[in-house]
Amino acid sequence: MRVFLPPGHARHDPDRIVGSGMAARPYFERPGRVEALLRALRAKGLAAEAPRDHGTAPIAAVHDAGYLAFLERAYEEWRAQPGREYDLAVRPNAFAVRPLHRRPTNIAGLAGWYLSGHGAPVLEHSWSAALSSAHAAIDAADAVLGGDPQAYALTRPPGHHAHADLAGGFCFLNNAAIAAERLRQGGVARVGILDIDVHHGNGTQAIFYEREDVHFVSVHSDPAGLYPFYAGYADEVGAGHGTALNLNIPLPAGATDSLWLDAVERGLDAYVGIDTLVVSLGFDAQRGDPTANLAVTADGFRGAGQRIAALGLPTVLIQEGGYLIETLEANLAAFLDGFFGARATQTQPLEATP
Amino acid sequence: MRVFLPPGHARHDPDRIVGSGMAARPYFERPGRVEALLRALRAKGLAAEAPRDHGTAPIAAVHDAGYLAFLERAYEEWRAQPGREYDLAVRPNAFAVRPLHRRPTNIAGLAGWYLSGHGAPVLEHSWSAALSSAHAAIDAADAVLGGDPQAYALTRPPGHHAHADLAGGFCFLNNAAIAAERLRQGGVARVGILDIDVHHGNGTQAIFYEREDVHFVSVHSDPAGLYPFYAGYADEVGAGHGTALNLNIPLPAGATDSLWLDAVERGLDAYVGIDTLVVSLGFDAQRGDPTANLAVTADGFRGAGQRIAALGLPTVLIQEGGYLIETLEANLAAFLDGFFGARATQTQPLEATP
Repeated sequence: MRVFLPPGHARHDPDRIVGSGMAARPYFERPGRVEALLRALRAKGLAAEAPRDHGTAPIAAVHDAGYLAFLERAYEEWRAQPGREYDLAVRPNAFAVRPLHRRPTNIAGLAGWYLSGHGAPVLEHSWSAALSSAHAAIDAADAVLGGDPQAYALTRPPGHHAHADLAGGFCFLNNAAIAAERLRQGGVARVGILDIDVHHGNGTQAIFYEREDVHFVSVHSDPAGLYPFYAGYADEVGAGHGTALNLNIPLPAGATDSLWLDAVERGLDAYVGIDTLVVSLGFDAQRGDPTANLAVTADGFRGAGQRIAALGLPTVLIQEGGYLIETLEANLAAFLDGFFGARATQTQPLEATP
Repeated sequence: MRVFLPPGHARHDPDRIVGSGMAARPYFERPGRVEALLRALRAKGLAAEAPRDHGTAPIAAVHDAGYLAFLERAYEEWRAQPGREYDLAVRPNAFAVRPLHRRPTNIAGLAGWYLSGHGAPVLEHSWSAALSSAHAAIDAADAVLGGDPQAYALTRPPGHHAHADLAGGFCFLNNAAIAAERLRQGGVARVGILDIDVHHGNGTQAIFYEREDVHFVSVHSDPAGLYPFYAGYADEVGAGHGTALNLNIPLPAGATDSLWLDAVERGLDAYVGIDTLVVSLGFDAQRGDPTANLAVTADGFRGAGQRIAALGLPTVLIQEGGYLIETLEANLAAFLDGFFGARATQTQPLEATP
C-alpha cells in the first residue's frame, strides 16, 4: 500500500503559537500525531512518499474560489492590519453567525466569514500545509485510479469539517471530498465515503448533500453533545438528487467497541452500487481522546478495518482525527491488521484471502 | 431630563477576566465609561436614577425566548461542563457560521449559536447587567410616554448590535429596540431610531427590517472596513412592510465633523411622519476611538445634539458605544449642550428656544 505524507505539515502548529489568545486552550491537532502514525506504518514495512504538486484545480473542484484565495492570502493580509504586525495567527473575533450573511471585503470580516471558530486558525504555513495535505489525498486517489487496491494519505491538517467555503474543527481543505471528487473525475461512477472519525464529517456531508454520485455515511458521537453541534443528526438524509444517500449514525457518549462496530457495519450495509470507497479515518473514537467522549479501543479499530476490507472495494484511506497521541500507533496498527486480514503481530501487509 | 442608570453594570467587566483566553485583547467596553458620562451629567445638574424592575415581558417583545433563556442560564451551564469549573466567561470556540444552521442543545454549541463572537462574553453578572440596562431603557421610554420631552438611559452594556436572538459587539439586549417597542406599545404610532454610534446598528436594523412602524436610520463608518462587517451597507433599505424605511449612511474612514454632520442631517431629513425619536447615542465616532476609524470631535456631537433637538420630537436617548474614555465627559457635555440649545459653559439644561 502506498502512503502519502505532506512533508511540511509540522510547520502548521497552532499549539506552539503563544500569545495569540489561543494559549489558554491546548490545540490538540499536533504534528506529533503524524509521528505516531508513521511508527505504525514503519512497523508494517510501509514507507511514506511526499505527494506530487497537483496545483489547485482538483481542489477548486470541491472548494469555493473566494475561500481558497482567502486561505492563501489571509495570513499576510491579517498582519498588514495596523497593530497586527506581530500576530502569528488569523483568529477572528467576530463571526458570520446566522443572520449575518453578507460577505465583507475586510480581512477581519473575511476571517469570521471563512473560519467558523478557533479550531482552524490560519498561521504562516497553514495554507501550504493544507495544500500539501490535499495533494497527498489526490495522490492516494490517483494510486487507486491507477489500479492499486488501496492507498493511504496521512493527511495533516485533517479535512472533514471543511466545507466548500468554510474552515473549522482543525480543517481547511476537505481531503476526503477532494479525493472523492478526484475519483469521480477519474471515471469512478459511484463513490462511497465512510467517515469513522468521532466527530461528524459535516463538511463532507455538506459538499455532497445533493449529489447522487457520492454517498456519505458517518458514524460519530451524537452532535447534541459534541462538536460540530450544528450538523450530524440522523434526520439529515441528503436532499435533491442526494436524497436518502446521506446516512448519519450518531452514537451516545460512552459507546464502546460493540456498539460502534455495529454502527460501522450498518453504515457499510447502507451502500448501494458503490465502486470505490473513501474512508475518513479518525482514531478519536478512542476512549480518553481529549476532544471526544466515546470509548472505542484498538479492537474496535481492528474490527472496522476488517469490515471495510470485507466490502472488497478499492479503498482510499484519508487520515482525519485522533488526539490521544499515545494510542495512535497501536490504533493505526490494529486498523491495518484488520484491513489486511492479518493478526496484530504480523509486520507485512497481506492481500485479502481469496 | 431624567437619567436612568443600571446600578449593577460594573459587575459586567470582561476586561478584568484574566486567563479566559481573552486576555490578549483589551476589552474596551468598560465600567469607567459610565463614570466619565456621569461626570458630564453631574456638571449639568442631572442626577441618575436606578431603573425599576420591569421583568422580562417588554424585553421578550423584542428578543427570542430561547435567546433570553440562554443568556440567563449560560454562565452556570457553562461552568457545569467538565473542566470548566474555573472558567469565568462563556466564550465559544466554534460558531454557527453560515451553513451551520441547526440549533443544538449543548451549551458549547448554544454559545456559538447565540453569541456571534468574543465581543459579548457572558460572565457571572452579564445577564443581570444587561437586564438592568434594558430596564433603564424602558424607564426612559416610559418617562417620554408620560409626557417628558426627553429622557436618557445611560445603558451599559450597550445594545444596538444585539439581534432578536444573537449577542455581539459588546451587546446582549437591544436597549434601543426595547425602548422603541415600548413606545409603540405605549401608543406611539411611528417611532424613528437614529443610530449615530460609529458602528452600524445591525441588531436594531434586523429587528425592525420588515416593520413599517419603526424607521431606522444609521450613520456609521463603512462596514467594509469596520465591525460589524456583515451589515450596514447603503443598499440595505428594509424589506416587506419596511421597504424604504431603513436608511444606512456609511462614511469613509477618517470622516470629520462636517461630513458626519451632513450625514446626520440627511438621516434626520429622511424621517416621514415620526412621532417620537429614539437615539442610539454612541461617541465612538470620536477621533482616536480604539474601536473605530472616524475623526469626529466634540463639535460634531454638539452639532448632532442641535440637529436632533431641531426636530422638536419627544426623544429617548439610549447610550451605545464610545471607548476613548478620556473624551466621553466632554462629548456627552457637548451633545447635551447642543441638544438643549445651551452653550458649553451652561450647567443647567434649557428648554429649546421658542
